[in-house]
Amino acid sequence: MTQNKFTLAEERIPKRWYNIAADLPKPLPPVLHPGTLKPVGPDDLAPLFPMALIMQEVSRDREIDIPEPVRDIYRMWRPTPLYRAHRLEKALGTTAKIFYKYEGVSPAGSHKPNTAVAQAFYNKEEGVTKLVTETGAGQWGSSLAMAGAFFGLSVKVYMVKVSFNQKPYRRALMETYGATCVASPSSETNSGRQILAADANSNGSLGIAISEAVEVAATSGDTKYALGSVLNHVLMHQSVIGIETIEQMEQAGVVPDVIVGYTGGGSNFAGLTFPFIGQQLRGGKKLRVIACEPAACPSLTRGRYAYDFGDTSHMTPLVKMHTLGSTFMPPGFHAGGLRYHGMAPLVSHLKELGIIEAEAFTQTECFAAGVQFARCEGIVPAPEANHAVRGAIKVALEAKAMGTSPVILFGLCGHGHFDMQAYMDYAAGKLEDRSYDQAALDQALAGLPKVAAE
Amino acid sequence: MTQNKFTLAEERIPKRWYNIAADLPKPLPPVLHPGTLKPVGPDDLAPLFPMALIMQEVSRDREIDIPEPVRDIYRMWRPTPLYRAHRLEKALGTTAKIFYKYEGVSPAGSHKPNTAVAQAFYNKEEGVTKLVTETGAGQWGSSLAMAGAFFGLSVKVYMVKVSFNQKPYRRALMETYGATCVASPSSETNSGRQILAADANSNGSLGIAISEAVEVAATSGDTKYALGSVLNHVLMHQSVIGIETIEQMEQAGVVPDVIVGYTGGGSNFAGLTFPFIGQQLRGGKKLRVIACEPAACPSLTRGRYAYDFGDTSHMTPLVKMHTLGSTFMPPGFHAGGLRYHGMAPLVSHLKELGIIEAEAFTQTECFAAGVQFARCEGIVPAPEANHAVRGAIKVALEAKAMGTSPVILFGLCGHGHFDMQAYMDYAAGKLEDRSYDQAALDQALAGLPKVAAE
Repeated sequence: MTQNKFTLAEERIPKRWYNIAADLPKPLPPVLHPGTLKPVGPDDLAPLFPMALIMQEVSRDREIDIPEPVRDIYRMWRPTPLYRAHRLEKALGTTAKIFYKYEGVSPAGSHKPNTAVAQAFYNKEEGVTKLVTETGAGQWGSSLAMAGAFFGLSVKVYMVKVSFNQKPYRRALMETYGATCVASPSSETNSGRQILAADANSNGSLGIAISEAVEVAATSGDTKYALGSVLNHVLMHQSVIGIETIEQMEQAGVVPDVIVGYTGGGSNFAGLTFPFIGQQLRGGKKLRVIACEPAACPSLTRGRYAYDFGDTSHMTPLVKMHTLGSTFMPPGFHAGGLRYHGMAPLVSHLKELGIIEAEAFTQTECFAAGVQFARCEGIVPAPEANHAVRGAIKVALEAKAMGTSPVILFGLCGHGHFDMQAYMDYAAGKLEDRSYDQAALDQALAGLPKVAAE
Repeated sequence: MTQNKFTLAEERIPKRWYNIAADLPKPLPPVLHPGTLKPVGPDDLAPLFPMALIMQEVSRDREIDIPEPVRDIYRMWRPTPLYRAHRLEKALGTTAKIFYKYEGVSPAGSHKPNTAVAQAFYNKEEGVTKLVTETGAGQWGSSLAMAGAFFGLSVKVYMVKVSFNQKPYRRALMETYGATCVASPSSETNSGRQILAADANSNGSLGIAISEAVEVAATSGDTKYALGSVLNHVLMHQSVIGIETIEQMEQAGVVPDVIVGYTGGGSNFAGLTFPFIGQQLRGGKKLRVIACEPAACPSLTRGRYAYDFGDTSHMTPLVKMHTLGSTFMPPGFHAGGLRYHGMAPLVSHLKELGIIEAEAFTQTECFAAGVQFARCEGIVPAPEANHAVRGAIKVALEAKAMGTSPVILFGLCGHGHFDMQAYMDYAAGKLEDRSYDQAALDQALAGLPKVAAE
């Protein structure tokens, strides 16, 4: 029997997160205050986050201990399995070896609980009782809802309206965990009311939903904000994925030549790849690392590396990142988790340093890859994850054409059981590969804030 | 850190299935031919099943080797985790220890692939190229669709019409795996046309869908039939659940006092409990084993133990089982997998022998239990599994009242990610606890076939 699953014992759940800031050849550009354009200090962020997370955000320690209550919950689904995709390799006729790390065994069906549980824990520790956040496709919102239930925190989620209407089951999952879910833009916040005044039928966007959630946290005394991606501490919490994978690849007796992940905000990609990239930065093997993004919202391949706001209403600090402009509205496509105008500063920074590369894919080619994967490996991937599947298959087919045998590792962040409508649309030939509007992109980029530091 | 997850290494995937027929104090009553009312022989079943499965159906060998290609696929999700429900215990304030075995980590999200893969393998081995089956909620149909994709078999699924319409995502999952899914009753078969002639708006039932699938297999030269529960060989394939659990409970250092499962056709219940019951029958510890069933379709608690057909059109052999009558139509409720008029002959037999007990629960109390479980343990159970959750919580609360500390083990067959509409209806107060119609039940029971052998 050929081994196709590499598991770790429960005690091998990582005891420490990995913080790539310690190994960067050049430090991240500072985060700027939206009013003063000066670097922010911890106190500036205190209205939004508990101090423990703020300190993680700016830490340059290579390793940060994972609190035992967090590890205790991690073991509900961690360590997650690493698989060798024998059947997919055979179907492709490739000489490459393909491995994938699967995060869909978590109760919420994705990698998002890795940080949701940590964030809920630190908020609880500092006496917070209410959390507010936004969600696109709903993977993050449902994960924070679950974490809130574990720690007795009340959770409110602003869900991008188009997903709120298209994905009632994700909303039902949040509500089953006891959270409140509101369609964004809503009439509950100034940010939401402004958007609705301009366009009563607005479908919403992640940028708008972030504005609403940040506003609630900033203007209330008892509520903190939680973000599911982009920020340094969020990416760091996801490093458990890659730390486990390093050990599992050793178990499999191989070292990856190419690592493939998809990028929306960047946390799933970072979680898998940063521990490997860290090894490389400390003198280890040079890897090819590919970030796969949607052609309809291509921040890494078509965005500008510049200071920008994380939200539409310009309430967040300014971070330097690949951005399509905070007012950019991507055309409709089915990977709701990837419809964000910006990219995690750490991922952007690595791209600028030439340590990672990026490639954009259309949604129909991604769904084709997902269906092929499902018929070979059983797991139906989330639409977001299909970008990584597509990227990995492309590398495998290139290897076949060249007669090489690379070891390819990719991240499968979650299952698509909440996203079957997208698969139905794909099967019915209803999916369109709509490109973004170039004029709108130009306009959004022209509206980037002027920051002298650049 | 208190241990709450008990995992097994990949090589501990069972090498043999356990067949309880070897340990029964009294053999099962024979299966009868629907025409002659004489016991059927293997040849009578040959139009429907490959000979390897027929021989398993009648075998009294205690152990049957699991073919390596089947184990090779099992390892995609097996061994599945056993959890201690620490948070649920705390929420209940119970002194009981509660453990649950979770099958929802399979790619299809339930225990059904355990037998789907085995059935697909044996059919493939004997040169079959097409499989036909029925499905209620869709867990079985999607699992056979997946197994068919692995072995290159074409799969056609007759899906009970009410579920076909209510659960488009389950249908999409089958189609993503490459299967064909048809609403039943359909106009494709004589059985379906007869039902439609009598009631053009028939919502269908498992009994009708079985008739359609069996008719297709019986009247075509190249298609075999596959069943997802009820039959001896199907229950035996599920024994991997209990075999693993025995080892995991040893790892946890405990022996169960009470085992709780839900029963629809009986395969999930049998899979978990039969290996434990086998130990008891061979002189081991006496266990309390509880089958939890829906009050709206209560075959074990309100049905008659008698010979009956497995389908509505009376094409199947006659088996002795607890039955509500093959024409019984349960009122609408949300656990589609439990809407079957009969019960597995082996489960019925154990009930008659007093080895297991049974209890019926209404759907609202089951959903209340499922929501409480989700907020404590993270996993949102499938509506079917909520019956086991409810049963386990009841035993735990009884223990609390009595001041005892039993070890309770229950089976969590799958997640409810495809069933969130039911949770939405529950949250909105829309779920009704409709009882079955007593007059209709009396009529269905009066129509039971007359079998002299009784």
